[in-house]
Order: sequence, then structure tokens, then C-alpha cells
Amino acid sequence: MQLALDKAKESLTKDNFPCGAVLVADGEIIGQSENKKETNKDRVSHAEMLLYIEYSSVLKKAKKEGYTITMYTTLEPCLMCFGSAAMHRVDRIVAATADPFGNMSQIEGDKLGQFYNSLPQLEYGLCFQESYELIKEYLLAADNDEARNYLQLFEEVKKS
Amino acid sequence: MQLALDKAKESLTKDNFPCGAVLVADGEIIGQSENKKETNKDRVSHAEMLLYIEYSSVLKKAKKEGYTITMYTTLEPCLMCFGSAAMHRVDRIVAATADPFGNMSQIEGDKLGQFYNSLPQLEYGLCFQESYELIKEYLLAADNDEARNYLQLFEEVKKS
Repeated sequence: MQLALDKAKESLTKDNFPCGAVLVADGEIIGQSENKKETNKDRVSHAEMLLYIEYSSVLKKAKKEGYTITMYTTLEPCLMCFGSAAMHRVDRIVAATADPFGNMSQIEGDKLGQFYNSLPQLEYGLCFQESYELIKEYLLAADNDEARNYLQLFEEVKKS
Repeated sequence: MQLALDKAKESLTKDNFPCGAVLVADGEIIGQSENKKETNKDRVSHAEMLLYIEYSSVLKKAKKEGYTITMYTTLEPCLMCFGSAAMHRVDRIVAATADPFGNMSQIEGDKLGQFYNSLPQLEYGLCFQESYELIKEYLLAADNDEARNYLQLFEEVKKS
């Protein structure tokens, strides 16, 4: 998670929302990335999605060979990144903090089709404080109503 | 949808699962793609996802300018593609057939966070028969238990 936090810091220095991710197969790092949404002026360039795009065929091969895949991320995935994790049969997602605006953990795979009955396992809280401090720095600098609302939601995660 | 079906036919000629998609802003075509999963040997190369990756910044700009975005697809999106549609604030997704293995339409956005309370509107059935025939051709050629199970699920969609 420390590497993912380093990536999150990198995104912050380039005025992107601070998020970093590291993709691991049986303890070996496959790749790492930071969020590049503002840099790339798009909505696909989430840290995790960039890793799924770059290493999709590597992941497919690793899963066929029986590797256990873990995604470390400083923020709970969005529906796109979580869906991509499900598509790649990622085993575990370890997130430093929940995303109170997205709240993907509430998804109920057993209400969807057969393919989603087994979803990646989501775990929270590892290095929460470090990730939260970066997000807080970004949202305080943004200084608008949306950012203030988002920060308020994170304060509630902190209390829980 | 006819263009999306043409793309689905292209994917079939290259031994990919037949799926095609066309992205439209206020009636103007932004882009079109076919599924390239087998060609690219990965799990990101869905027809829709390839369009979100290629046209992400175009979509962001179009939404800011107030365009209504529609995705025409020959098959109901998976969780990754649907999540990407939500992220890009796509207004409508028109799918020729539901995906009985994925069954994404059962997702309940109001149980997730604020961001997902307004999800893209999903519509089904336009050109169902044409898309179904392509899928049937692919699954019959695959000739294995998984393909037979999948085809059985599509037969039930056909009856409904």
C-alpha cells in the first residue's frame, strides 16, 4: 500500500485527485499507476483502470496459470474499475479508504447474473489516515461546494 | 443499431464473440467498434470499453456542452462497460439483447452512493433477432459445455 500511496502523491503533484494503485500477482508487482484524469482530461484514466488496460492480457495469462491477483488502491474502486476487476477475476481489492460518494461495497452480486455471483473480495482501512490526508489536501485546495460535500462524507468514514 | 450489428459481424469473422457498439451524441456518431477480446487476448477489449477508452475526453467535452449521449450495443453491457457508461454520464444504452449471464439490469443504483443514484437508462430488444442469430452462430461453433449453457440462457431471453 505504501507504493500505492506514493503514486497517489504523484497524482496530487499533477493536480489530479490523489489516488494510486498497485497490481500484484502472488506477491509480485505487475504494475503501478496513479490517477491521471485531469492530466488526460478524460474519465477513463483512473489509477486502477489504467492498470487493467495496460496489463489486461498479462492478467488473463496469470489467472489461467492460477496466480492470486490483488489490487491495492488508496481509494475504493468506482463501478467501472470494480467491474473491470470482476471481469479480470481479481481475487482481492485492498482499499485504504472507502469512497463515500460511490459506495460500491453495497453492490449485491447475487442479484446479478451468474457471472457476478463471485465478486472480488473488498477490504478497507489499511493506511486509511495517509490516504485521507492526501484527499483532504486536494479537496481543501479545490475550495468549492462539491469538494466540501465530498470532504464531509470522508469525515463520516473517518468516524466509522 | 444496424451499424452496431455490422460491427458485431466483423468481430465474428475474426473469431471474437459477436458484439458491436456505436456511440452517438445528439444523433451524430462519435465512434463505432467491435469486440476484440480474442484478437487482443485480453479482457478489456469489449466493443463498448474500446469506445470509452478512445473517446473518453470527447465524451467529457460533449457532456459539458449539454449533448445527450446514447450507446447502441448488440449485447447488454457488462459491469465494467456499464460502470464506464455511468462514469461518462451516458444518458441511454440501447441493447439488442439482454445478457442473461451478466444480467446487469438488476443493479440497484439507489443502494450505492450518491454518484450512482442516476444511472444510464437501459433499453432492450431493438434488432434482438439479428444479434441473437450472430451469438447463436458463435456459441454453436464453440461447441463446449459453457457455450451450450450460455445458449440455453439466451433461448430463455428469446421466449421472454
